[in-house]
Order: sequence, then structure tokens, then C-alpha cells
Amino acid sequence: MKTFLDCIPCLIRQSLAAVRLATPDERVHEQILREALQAASQMDLSWPPPAMAQIVHRRIQQICRNGDPYRASKDHFNRLALGLLPAFRRQLREAADPWNVAVRLAAAGNVMDLGVKSGLDEGEIRIALEHCLTEPLEGDSAEFAEAVAAAERILYLTDNAGEIVFDRLLIEQMPRTKVTVAVRGSPVINDATRRDAETAGLTELVPVIDNGSDAPGTILADCSEPFQRHFAAADLVVAKGQGNYETLWGVSQRIYFLLRVKCPVIARDIGCPVGRMVLRRSDSGPAADFEGMG
Amino acid sequence: MKTFLDCIPCLIRQSLAAVRLATPDERVHEQILREALQAASQMDLSWPPPAMAQIVHRRIQQICRNGDPYRASKDHFNRLALGLLPAFRRQLREAADPWNVAVRLAAAGNVMDLGVKSGLDEGEIRIALEHCLTEPLEGDSAEFAEAVAAAERILYLTDNAGEIVFDRLLIEQMPRTKVTVAVRGSPVINDATRRDAETAGLTELVPVIDNGSDAPGTILADCSEPFQRHFAAADLVVAKGQGNYETLWGVSQRIYFLLRVKCPVIARDIGCPVGRMVLRRSDSGPAADFEGMG
Repeated sequence: MKTFLDCIPCLIRQSLAAVRLATPDERVHEQILREALQAASQMDLSWPPPAMAQIVHRRIQQICRNGDPYRASKDHFNRLALGLLPAFRRQLREAADPWNVAVRLAAAGNVMDLGVKSGLDEGEIRIALEHCLTEPLEGDSAEFAEAVAAAERILYLTDNAGEIVFDRLLIEQMPRTKVTVAVRGSPVINDATRRDAETAGLTELVPVIDNGSDAPGTILADCSEPFQRHFAAADLVVAKGQGNYETLWGVSQRIYFLLRVKCPVIARDIGCPVGRMVLRRSDSGPAADFEGMG
Repeated sequence: MKTFLDCIPCLIRQSLAAVRLATPDERVHEQILREALQAASQMDLSWPPPAMAQIVHRRIQQICRNGDPYRASKDHFNRLALGLLPAFRRQLREAADPWNVAVRLAAAGNVMDLGVKSGLDEGEIRIALEHCLTEPLEGDSAEFAEAVAAAERILYLTDNAGEIVFDRLLIEQMPRTKVTVAVRGSPVINDATRRDAETAGLTELVPVIDNGSDAPGTILADCSEPFQRHFAAADLVVAKGQGNYETLWGVSQRIYFLLRVKCPVIARDIGCPVGRMVLRRSDSGPAADFEGMG
């Protein structure tokens, strides 16, 4: 997905929020803000928004000598998710259609995104998760189940810390021998890295690789060669979250995108209102095919 | 007031909203956005936010050859306000303290600001006005009444179209021979110009001057010499809205600021929560003196 003009003020806001997490030094806040404005003024809009975010967040880490400004937030979200896990696991055990419930929980968990919103309160997360069984899910989870059953090599691209705990519930519903999980290669915003996969218990369950990149999405050309090989070899890719949607929509690979719509730009592009959980097959045609457009 | 870092993403968003109103040409939208980013990256933050807005809005009008992109919005707000006027006039006639009611209506009318929020629905305006008699007003309207009674030359600086209709109700409560009303010298955002003062019926009531400037506030050095003389000669200035607060707070003149707090930056600076109506004397001391801080 290209960068829309509406993404730019949001990227500028995100840059400011990120540098404030990385250092209390207000001179550095101003420096990064000015650099982000300068970079945005010359940005190639045919690139997806995570490409711009990658440049800014890399610069913040470099200047602030803080390799992981969102670490505390990620730990917080992981703890929050792990605390909620037992109750949802019980719900899953008692569900008539556990697959559908797991898909919904994984989509709802995508609410834990600090790129879209600088402040995200716990109440909002709890509400998204608690309501996910009754709120509409755009897309066909039964068809997704069939695709998973038919696939031989599944690559599951995670998005955020915290959310990754709910990804585990969905991955537990898949034939484990088929699944490889991928995380970001280096910290960026609150995206999940290997450490979060370990915290979520995923490393005990399935092979976990990293994509070698520090973009908050999956810019294939920026990913490591081993990851690219895994990606090409997979006959089914599950891509979580907006960042992966923004960077992989239009790539000629069979991908199921699973996310919670969190901004008006994605809402317009994907054809669903903000707040909606979406399961979307890469070759499923234009947004207009989807019902319940916002 | 200086420009805070948080003002920058908001100014960028405002630039995009303004150019979209001025032309449907998306290449121009991108051009203005890139220019605004470039200008913001080099901005002197000791200047108030309206100084940056002035540069961008002037450039939009120049490139789009559209001298008044917000004209339709301003007409709409004027009509809306004039439609509500008879009911509020009745309320004022029946009020135990008409001065206090008029102050509150003038403050609540300041909700009609398209700089802070790109979209503003009619419902929000009606709610602000209808609730203004019961919601808290920070500041002492009786002391303000005394200051008005004691003053000899009052200069009333308006802010937005629509709102100016409610300013009229307050000005009608003042000794008219003392009052001069000032509007912006040229169109910028939905700020009131002479035409709006005429629509509101103010020109029939009191002398109306313009400030000779196209800034969405009152940058004295940018105002015309006649306006500057009026300003210096006034022994009481009433300054409506955030833009006038941002540009005149700290100026050594007796000013009563009257506004509705509409953004977190002003809320922090002024020491009141977003949504609050505020009447604030220029020499009234630090924000901490105010009760009910947000």
C-alpha cells in the first residue's frame, strides 16, 4: 500500500511519541521532530508508511543510544495478555467453533498497537478482547481453516508484543509441524521480536525465525535472505496487523491478512470501518466485495 | 505562546485539510503538504502557532488562486448561529444574570473553530451552546463586568465566523459607545472577516475595523498601523479564541481572554481541561491559580 497524504501527520505524531519514550531530553525531541518533518517533505509516497517509520525509528535509536525504547510497554502488554490468557483458553475449550474463536482473539489482540495511537489504555484492550466474540469479523474463517488444512508450509508473521500471546492461541489450533512463526529482526515501536515470542511461549511450540529487518511491517527487499527463502517457500502466509497489510498487500503470494482496523486510511483502503476485525485473503479481490463497509 | 512540539503534527494536519478545501487537485494537496513539512522543519518555535499557519494558508490561497477556501463553511456557521439566535436571545432576556449568560454564550460559540478540528459537526456545536449555562466557566464574569464598566475604550477581537453572532450578544450587553470590534484583515481558516461582522449585524451596532493581517490570531507586528493604534489606545481588550490567546498572551496590555479550550496543548498551557470555557485576565497570574484544573 502506498503512503496516503493522511498518513503523514500521523507519522509525524508517531515520531514525536517514540522519541519521547526514548529520552527525556527535549532538545532531542525537537531534533528528531525536525528531521522527521524534513524526511517526510521529501518522502517517496509510493513506499508504504512503515518505510518512513523505519527511517525515523532507526534514527531515534541511533541518536538516543536506546535500542528498544518500547521495551517497558512491550513487557507490560505481554504481562497483560498472559494474565488474560487462562480465561480465554477456557472459553476456547468450551467453544462450539474453537477455530473461529481463536481467529477472533488473534484479530482482537491486534488492538495492542502503539504506532497508531500514542496512548492506549488497558480498558480499551480489555473491551476489544471481551467483545470480539460478538462483534462482526469480516472474512470467512471456515475458508481460512480449509486453507490452513490444505497448506503444507505455513509462515505466520506476527505484529505486536502482547498480541503475540493471542497469536499463540491461534497457532495452537494449527497443525504445528507445518507452522513457522516470524518476528521482526530488531525492535521498532512495540512490534514483537524474538524475546516476545519467547515470553508468549511460542518458541517451545514451533520454529521461530526473525525477518532480519527493523521496519514495522514486512518490506521483503529489506528482510534477510533466510527469511525471504522461508517466505517464498511457504504455500500459506498469515500476516498480522496493519504494518504487514501495508507492506504485503499486492505481493503475489497467498496471504491471509488478519488485523483490527485502527485508522481511517486503512479503513478506506480495506473497505471496513475503524474498529472492525478483518480476515482478508490476498487474492480476494477489491474492497467492494466485502460487506458491511464503513 | 510559543509553538509546542505537539502543535506541529496538528499544523500539518490543518494544512492538508485547508488545501483540500481550496482545490480538488491532489497534486496540489501533495505540494502544499510537502511545503508545510519543509517549513515546519525549519520553524522558529519561539513564534506562536498562528505564525506558521499564516505562512501555509497564504501559500494555499496563492497556489490555488482561491482567496477564501473556507467561505462556504463560514456562511454555514453564520446561518447556523443566526438560526439559534432568537432562542438564546429569549433565554438572555429571562436570565437573572444576563451578563453571565452572554459571556458563556460567547465562550461556547468559540467551539466553531475549523483550525483545531478539520471536521466539526453541527451536533457538537449545538451541545456546546445548549450546555454552556450549566457547564463550568473558569474565571470571574462579575469582575469582567466591572472592568467593562470602568473602561473607556474597549477593543473586542473576534475569532471565528458563526461565533461572531454570539459575540454580538455579549457586545449588546456593553455600553456601545465604548466598543470597537476588530476582525481579521484577510480570510484565513474560518476566522471572521468584515463580511462576517456584517452578517452578524455588528456593523450596525458598533464601529468594526480589521487588523490588516491574515494570521489566524493577532500578531501585533503583522497588523496594520491603524489597528495597532486602536490596540494601544484601548484600556480594555477582549480577545476571543485560541488563536488570539496564542498570539497575545504575555503582551503588556489589559486583556480578557475568552475562549473554549479545544486542544491538549492549550489545556496544559492555560491549566484547564479540553472543553472548558475560560475567561482569563492577562495579569491574572499563573495557571495554577485556577480551580478545576484538568
